[in-house]
Amino acid sequence: MKSLIGGPGTVSGLVLRVGQFLFASASIGAMLSALGFSTFTAFSYLIASMGLQLAWSLGLACLDVYALRIKRDLQNPVLVCLFVVGDWVTATLSLAAACSSAGVTILYVTDFGLCGQLPISCRRFQISVALAFITWFLVATSSLVMFWMLGSV
Amino acid sequence: MKSLIGGPGTVSGLVLRVGQFLFASASIGAMLSALGFSTFTAFSYLIASMGLQLAWSLGLACLDVYALRIKRDLQNPVLVCLFVVGDWVTATLSLAAACSSAGVTILYVTDFGLCGQLPISCRRFQISVALAFITWFLVATSSLVMFWMLGSV
Repeated sequence: MKSLIGGPGTVSGLVLRVGQFLFASASIGAMLSALGFSTFTAFSYLIASMGLQLAWSLGLACLDVYALRIKRDLQNPVLVCLFVVGDWVTATLSLAAACSSAGVTILYVTDFGLCGQLPISCRRFQISVALAFITWFLVATSSLVMFWMLGSV
Repeated sequence: MKSLIGGPGTVSGLVLRVGQFLFASASIGAMLSALGFSTFTAFSYLIASMGLQLAWSLGLACLDVYALRIKRDLQNPVLVCLFVVGDWVTATLSLAAACSSAGVTILYVTDFGLCGQLPISCRRFQISVALAFITWFLVATSSLVMFWMLGSV
C-alpha cells in the first residue's frame, strides 16, 4: 500500500489529527461559554458530536505518535478499514452537527434578528459553528485520504 | 475497471438515480406546500439544494438509460472522475440542507413547541426533511460506489 500525505502513521496525518482535536475543543469551549445554549437541541448535539470527534482524533493522534516513534507501518488493510469507518462516521456526524447549529444560528441572527432581544450569546454560537465547520473540513480530508488508500489496496 | 452494483451505466445505478430524483422532488413538493416556509433561510436552502440534486440525478439517469440502450460502457476514468466530483458536491449539499432544516424543525416542534401557536405547517416541514434525508442516503450510496471505482482504477 502506497504511503499518502495525511495517511496514518505519517507526520502530515498527525498534524491533521492534532488540528481536528484543537478545533473540536475550541468549538465545544465556545459553545459551553455561550449563554442559553442548553435550550437548543442542535447546540447540545454539536457539543456531543464535537466531543466524539475530539476523542477519536486524540486516539488516532496518539497512535500516529506511537507509529512515528517506533517507525511502525500502520498502513495495513484491516487498520485502514477501521480508520475509514471511524472517520466517515465522525465526519458525517460533525457535518450534521455544524449544519443543524448553523440553521438555528442563521434563524436567530438573520431571519428574525432576535439576538439583541433575548439573553443568548449569538456571537459565541457563530464562532462555535465556524470552528465546527473547520473541524469537519479537516476530518473530511482525513476520511478521503483513508478511503482512497482502502480503494487502492 | 470492474463493474460495480450502483455504478454508471448499470440497471442498479439507474434505479438509484431515479430514487434520488423522486425523493428530491417529493421533498421540494412537501416544502413548497408548507405554510410559511419562505421566512426560514434553512428551508429555502433545502429547496435550492434538492433542486440541484434533482437536476443532477435526472441528468445521470438519462445518461444511464442511453448507456443501457446502446450498451455503451460509461466506466472510463475521466467520466467516473466527473461523476465522483458531482456526487460528492451534491451529497454534501443535500446533507447540509437536510441537517440545517432538521435543526430548525426540531427547534420549533420539540424545543419551544411553537407549532400550534404560529401559522406554519410543522408536519410538512418534518415530511420534507425526512425525504431530504432519504435523498441524501441514496446520493451517499452512489458517491461511495463512484469513489470506490475511482480508487480501484
